[in-house]
Amino acid sequence: MLTRPERCWTLTEDDILALEIGAAILGTGGGGNPYIGKLRARQALRDGHKLRVVSLQALPDDAKVVSLGGIGAPLVSFERIKEGREGLRCVRALEERLGFKADAIACEEIGGQNAMEPLIVASLAGIPVVDCDGMGRAFPEMQMSTYSIYGHRSTPSVMCDPHGNVVIFDHAISEKWHERMARACVIAQGGASTLASAPMSGAFLKRFAVPNSYTRAVALGRAVMEARRNHADPIAAICEMEQGKLIHTGKIVDLKRHLRGGFVTGEAIIEGFDAYQGETGSVLIQNENLVFKRDGQVEVVVPDLIIILDIDGGEAITTEMLRYGQRVAVLAVPCHPLLRTSEALEVIGPRGFGFDDIVYRPFGADVVRNQRAGDE
Amino acid sequence: MLTRPERCWTLTEDDILALEIGAAILGTGGGGNPYIGKLRARQALRDGHKLRVVSLQALPDDAKVVSLGGIGAPLVSFERIKEGREGLRCVRALEERLGFKADAIACEEIGGQNAMEPLIVASLAGIPVVDCDGMGRAFPEMQMSTYSIYGHRSTPSVMCDPHGNVVIFDHAISEKWHERMARACVIAQGGASTLASAPMSGAFLKRFAVPNSYTRAVALGRAVMEARRNHADPIAAICEMEQGKLIHTGKIVDLKRHLRGGFVTGEAIIEGFDAYQGETGSVLIQNENLVFKRDGQVEVVVPDLIIILDIDGGEAITTEMLRYGQRVAVLAVPCHPLLRTSEALEVIGPRGFGFDDIVYRPFGADVVRNQRAGDE
Repeated sequence: MLTRPERCWTLTEDDILALEIGAAILGTGGGGNPYIGKLRARQALRDGHKLRVVSLQALPDDAKVVSLGGIGAPLVSFERIKEGREGLRCVRALEERLGFKADAIACEEIGGQNAMEPLIVASLAGIPVVDCDGMGRAFPEMQMSTYSIYGHRSTPSVMCDPHGNVVIFDHAISEKWHERMARACVIAQGGASTLASAPMSGAFLKRFAVPNSYTRAVALGRAVMEARRNHADPIAAICEMEQGKLIHTGKIVDLKRHLRGGFVTGEAIIEGFDAYQGETGSVLIQNENLVFKRDGQVEVVVPDLIIILDIDGGEAITTEMLRYGQRVAVLAVPCHPLLRTSEALEVIGPRGFGFDDIVYRPFGADVVRNQRAGDE
Repeated sequence: MLTRPERCWTLTEDDILALEIGAAILGTGGGGNPYIGKLRARQALRDGHKLRVVSLQALPDDAKVVSLGGIGAPLVSFERIKEGREGLRCVRALEERLGFKADAIACEEIGGQNAMEPLIVASLAGIPVVDCDGMGRAFPEMQMSTYSIYGHRSTPSVMCDPHGNVVIFDHAISEKWHERMARACVIAQGGASTLASAPMSGAFLKRFAVPNSYTRAVALGRAVMEARRNHADPIAAICEMEQGKLIHTGKIVDLKRHLRGGFVTGEAIIEGFDAYQGETGSVLIQNENLVFKRDGQVEVVVPDLIIILDIDGGEAITTEMLRYGQRVAVLAVPCHPLLRTSEALEVIGPRGFGFDDIVYRPFGADVVRNQRAGDE
C-alpha cells in the first residue's frame, strides 16, 4: 500500500546513534533512557532488517497505522531487557482481533526510549514507521497523546509482556480508564510491557499527529554530535535546532524527589551562576520536568519543553539521574501547536498534572522579548 | 442443544432462599455474602427470566460451557451493587472473540456469593446453569478450581466491570499468571468485576467438575430452614446433610486479623465450652478458614471444609464478620475427592496457602474413629 519509496527513508546505524541523543533531549527528563532501545534497533539492522521511516505526506489516507510503545517503569525496562518480539506479538494479536493488516507503525512518544520501540517492531513486521508521534516529547500517561486528545479511541489495544502473556483491552469507557487498567496490568506483568493501540487512518494522522518526529530527533542528535566533534557548544546547537532558549545555568543545591503513585515527583533547586548569578531556578518534576520557576515566579510550564542538560557535554539528564551538585543548563523549547489548543491543555496543561494554580502561558514570544543580553 | 428438559430443574424463589443459606455455609468463611446475589436472582425471576439448572448427566459431551463468577473483594461487591449485566457482557464478548455460542453456564465456586452470579447470567442469556462447580466450596484465587487443576486453560477470558470496560485476557502462560493479571486489573476497575473463562466441553465437566453443587447447596439450605422451623438443631442438620462433624464449640476470646496482599489473614482463638470445656480451638484464616487446631495440634486442614457457625441460629459467619465474644460452633466437612488428589493438593492443599509445615491428612476416617462421645 505504501508505494512511494522516494518518501521513505532508511535509517543507518549512525542515524540510530543520533536518534538516541535527540530522543533523550526531547524526553524532557522522562520517557526513559533510549540506550537499550538503541542496541536493539542496531541489532535489528545488523540482522538484516530495514528501519524504514515514511513521511506523513506519503501516507495514503486509508492506510491503517498502529501506534505502539513500551508501557511501565522506564527503570525496569532498563534493567530487564525485553524479550524482543513483544511489540510484534501486540501487532499480530491486534490484527487478528480486528481482522485487518497494519500498513505502518506510529510512534506514541518521540521523547525517551519509546522513540526506538516502533522502529524495531516495524522492522520485524517489514513495514515502515511513520515520521510522526503523539507528543513531540514525552508524557507519563497514555491519554496524553494528540491521538487520544483529538478523538482517536485507543481500544481495542493489546499488551504483551516478555513472559508471553497477552491482554486485550477490548473496550475502555474513556482514554483515562484505558490508562488506569493498562497501568495496573503492566505492574502485575513485572513493570515493563509493550502496548499497541487500535489502528488510526492515514488521514487522521495527517491532521492530528505531531509531524516529522524522527527527522527532528535524528537532526537534533546529529547537531549535538557535530558540535561535540567541532568543540563547539552543543547547548547552543540544541537551541538553534529547536527554537529553544537557554533559560538558566547553575548548580543543583537541593533536590526533593519521591515516588508517589508510580511516578517520580519532586523539585530541583538550581542556584544560578554565570549570567544567572544571584537567581534561583527551580524545576517541578512528575516523571518529566513540568514547571520552571525563577525566584518563585513561574516562567515555563508544561506542555512546553523544559530540558535539563549537563552543562559541559550537553547530555540530557533524566529526572531520576538528577544529583546534588550537578552543574546544569535549563532549556525551554516551545511545544508543537497541537499541544496548545484548549482540548490539549485540558489533558496536558498544568491542570492535567495537578498544578491547579498555574496558568499556562505559551513559552516563546514574550519570554524572548524580555530576555536579557546574557542569555545567548 | 440441551434437549432433555426432564433433566432440567427450574429454581423457585424458595430455592433461592435456601441457596443463600447453603452457599454461605459452603463458603467456609470466604466467598462473600450471597445476600445481594439472592436479591438479584430473585429480581431476575420476578422479571420473568427462568433460573434453570441442568444436571451433568444431561449435558451433551460436546456442549460448550462457560464458567464465570465475580472477581474482586467480596466486601466491595456487597457495598457497590453490580450494574447487573456484567456477566452477560462477558459471555457475549467471549463468544465474539472465539466464534462460538455458549450452551450453558458453569459455576466457579458454589461457596459464597459466586453461587448466584452464574444463575443470573444464564437466566439473562436464556440458557441453563450446570449443576456443578469447580471447588465444592470457596477458594480465594481463580487457579484453585478443579477446572484449572485438571488441565482446562481458562484463557481467553473476559472481564467486565460495572462501568462498561471490557478486558480480554487473551493468553496467560499459566493459570497463576491469569489470576495475577486479572487481580491487578479488577483492583483498577474498582474492586468487583465479573470474569468468564474460555469454554469447557460437557465431557470435560463430567470428569472434572464437582457434581451436584446446586442440588447440594439448596438441600443444605432447606435442611437448615426446616430445622429452624421445627425448633430442631440446624447444626446437627448440616452435619447430617454434609457427612460433617461438629469438632468444637466455644467462645471467641482472641482474634488477630489483618489485610495482607488483598487477603484477610489471621487467627481466631476459640475457648471451648460444653463438651469442649478446657480445650482451646484455633482457626487460621486466609479469606477462608484454612486450618483448625486443638490445643496447638492440627486437626483439620484445607481443602477439607472448616465451617464456623453461630451456635444458636446456625448461620455461617464469614471471616470478616468474626467478632470477639461470639459463641460459635466449628464444623468439619470432608471435601470432594477431586480436591484430594496430589495434583489438587499442590494447588489447594496447605502448601498452596503457604503452610509449608502442615501435612494434609484427609478429614474423615481417623478423626471420626478418635471422636469422643460428647461430639454428637
